[in-house]
Amino acid sequence: MKAQTTIKDIAKALNISPSTVSRALKDHPDISQKTKDAVNQVAEELDYHPNTIAQSLRKSRSNTIGVVVPELVHHFFASVISGIEDVAYKAGYRVVICQTNEDVEREKQNVSALISSRVDGILCSMTKETRDFKHFKSVQKRNIPLIFFDRIANEVKADSVVVQDYEGAFQAVEHLISQGCRRIAHFKGPDSLLITKQRINGFHDAMREHKLPVEQDLIIEADNRDLARATIRQMVESGAPLPDGIFCVNDNVAVGALLQLREMGVKVPEQVKIIGFEDDVTFTQLTDPQISSVVQPSFEMGQLATHMFLDELARKESHPDKILEIKTPRIEVLKTKVVVRGSSCEKVWEEEKNRRVQE
Amino acid sequence: MKAQTTIKDIAKALNISPSTVSRALKDHPDISQKTKDAVNQVAEELDYHPNTIAQSLRKSRSNTIGVVVPELVHHFFASVISGIEDVAYKAGYRVVICQTNEDVEREKQNVSALISSRVDGILCSMTKETRDFKHFKSVQKRNIPLIFFDRIANEVKADSVVVQDYEGAFQAVEHLISQGCRRIAHFKGPDSLLITKQRINGFHDAMREHKLPVEQDLIIEADNRDLARATIRQMVESGAPLPDGIFCVNDNVAVGALLQLREMGVKVPEQVKIIGFEDDVTFTQLTDPQISSVVQPSFEMGQLATHMFLDELARKESHPDKILEIKTPRIEVLKTKVVVRGSSCEKVWEEEKNRRVQE
Repeated sequence: MKAQTTIKDIAKALNISPSTVSRALKDHPDISQKTKDAVNQVAEELDYHPNTIAQSLRKSRSNTIGVVVPELVHHFFASVISGIEDVAYKAGYRVVICQTNEDVEREKQNVSALISSRVDGILCSMTKETRDFKHFKSVQKRNIPLIFFDRIANEVKADSVVVQDYEGAFQAVEHLISQGCRRIAHFKGPDSLLITKQRINGFHDAMREHKLPVEQDLIIEADNRDLARATIRQMVESGAPLPDGIFCVNDNVAVGALLQLREMGVKVPEQVKIIGFEDDVTFTQLTDPQISSVVQPSFEMGQLATHMFLDELARKESHPDKILEIKTPRIEVLKTKVVVRGSSCEKVWEEEKNRRVQE
Repeated sequence: MKAQTTIKDIAKALNISPSTVSRALKDHPDISQKTKDAVNQVAEELDYHPNTIAQSLRKSRSNTIGVVVPELVHHFFASVISGIEDVAYKAGYRVVICQTNEDVEREKQNVSALISSRVDGILCSMTKETRDFKHFKSVQKRNIPLIFFDRIANEVKADSVVVQDYEGAFQAVEHLISQGCRRIAHFKGPDSLLITKQRINGFHDAMREHKLPVEQDLIIEADNRDLARATIRQMVESGAPLPDGIFCVNDNVAVGALLQLREMGVKVPEQVKIIGFEDDVTFTQLTDPQISSVVQPSFEMGQLATHMFLDELARKESHPDKILEIKTPRIEVLKTKVVVRGSSCEKVWEEEKNRRVQE
């Protein structure tokens, strides 16, 4: 059985030369429309697929963008990818996605594999554990555009898109303070990630701005649902006075804290107010009370990252002699917004209850 | 600037032949450990990446599995992909993922692109709209293993993994009947998908088994949250008596129905009992009441699909002369399980309320 139809097969079927077929398939002006139509029809009939591997060896273009993300189960990343595809497909690029599962070794493996398969660019959000950046520098050395989004590395000079993590955190804490909170806890992410570091800084600066003391034992690393639950359990069981507000590094942490407090008989928002930072829109409005959050434009982040890749590719192709390092990295910062729901505001919580008072 | 380090560069640096370098990199027994160590060290220093495109032209292997799924925002598919990666990486394969966004044209484009980039196999879950199967037959004609999971096509003879959609639906409806429901509605998916057709059949057969009439206007196509909300709104506003139970084609539909009923003053589970079919575990336990569901082993589905690909590849390589068509397709069916929560059972709903009675 024959594995692949080639240009030669089409040429033979039409009794014309392979180079005519090749040019017809590329819509070359020297070839008549009649010939082009015939070639395209036979190509369709013989189920011809261009061998992109051989093509990419010749013109070193694969028309593929590689995307590397930590975890696809996070709604946030799925949404960024939709934004990437939205721009990429319109520009004639296809998108292949690799997931690292927060494993640096797999991140290195994925990046190396994408380099080897000659993608035209890599869009990446790092793992929590990435401390060594050699694999990214290796991308840049090859003059392949590398764009970071969300989780970026200051250590690598690359174009990147982030959101206002610092400002969002600052505003979230100010909101808790405006609701009467004085002893505010922060369930934080790892210091290794710039985004979580920014959120920690925003927390500290908002407390300082409002002359509120930061209690060190109320700053706890807990960046998933289970850790949030365990942290709340410890806090309640210790018998020490609870904080009156918690700023959580993401929505999954906020939901874990909310459910655990509720199960242990602590009232949210009356006794403890909670606000998260958007990572999953699918559930923040399902709980009682609903969860306040700092929302971020994830779809737009994907769109913008892809536009930056296209710009970078165009720049590179118009100045093939210049190397990337000479350019100052372009950093785009997208706006965040505090969305107040019942978990951080008694008035809104009353409204949420009234909306289903008929029960 | 030099784009890629080659084997020749390593050979030159060590003053040995390129073929020695090549064999050393492949851990060939004829090469001394000392030479291998030296070669690997220089390869590391010069940041050498094997050119897999050139390699795959030579040995027609890319060590890549292509995965095509409808939507990554669905937790179900993200979980299947984790299962695929779990087996694939251990077997030395990397995984590239393409998303179709329920668009048949993009599905064709993705499949064609994966063929062109010479993946070793394709694991696919079809779009809702796929009615034409030429692109899949095109994969098989090339002797590339093609495995379907979840959303499969009877029209294509291929190995596939599904869950007990019929049995799961049957059991879900029997559960509603055991809870006292007599007028049961089904919010169904499109008839084009085998899985949703199976769920419809399970619904009908369970009703027939229990000698309950099926009311045609209680079978409504509504396969996402918004459609479920709109359907409930119409039902309530029409003033006609509501069904006492709803079997929903997935959890997103169940959550939409639940929230809309609650907002319109209808009590769940007291007046209407609801059960879904698992597509997202992240939120079924967040609502009041929590949502009953038919749970399916998505991670295991991904693992099994990948094992089937590896089996198929081994079979193909040991009998390169035989074509795929002669084999009877292997269909694996994974077990589902009804998980009862408050949305379909008053007793469980009381327990859920008691668990936070301290409030």
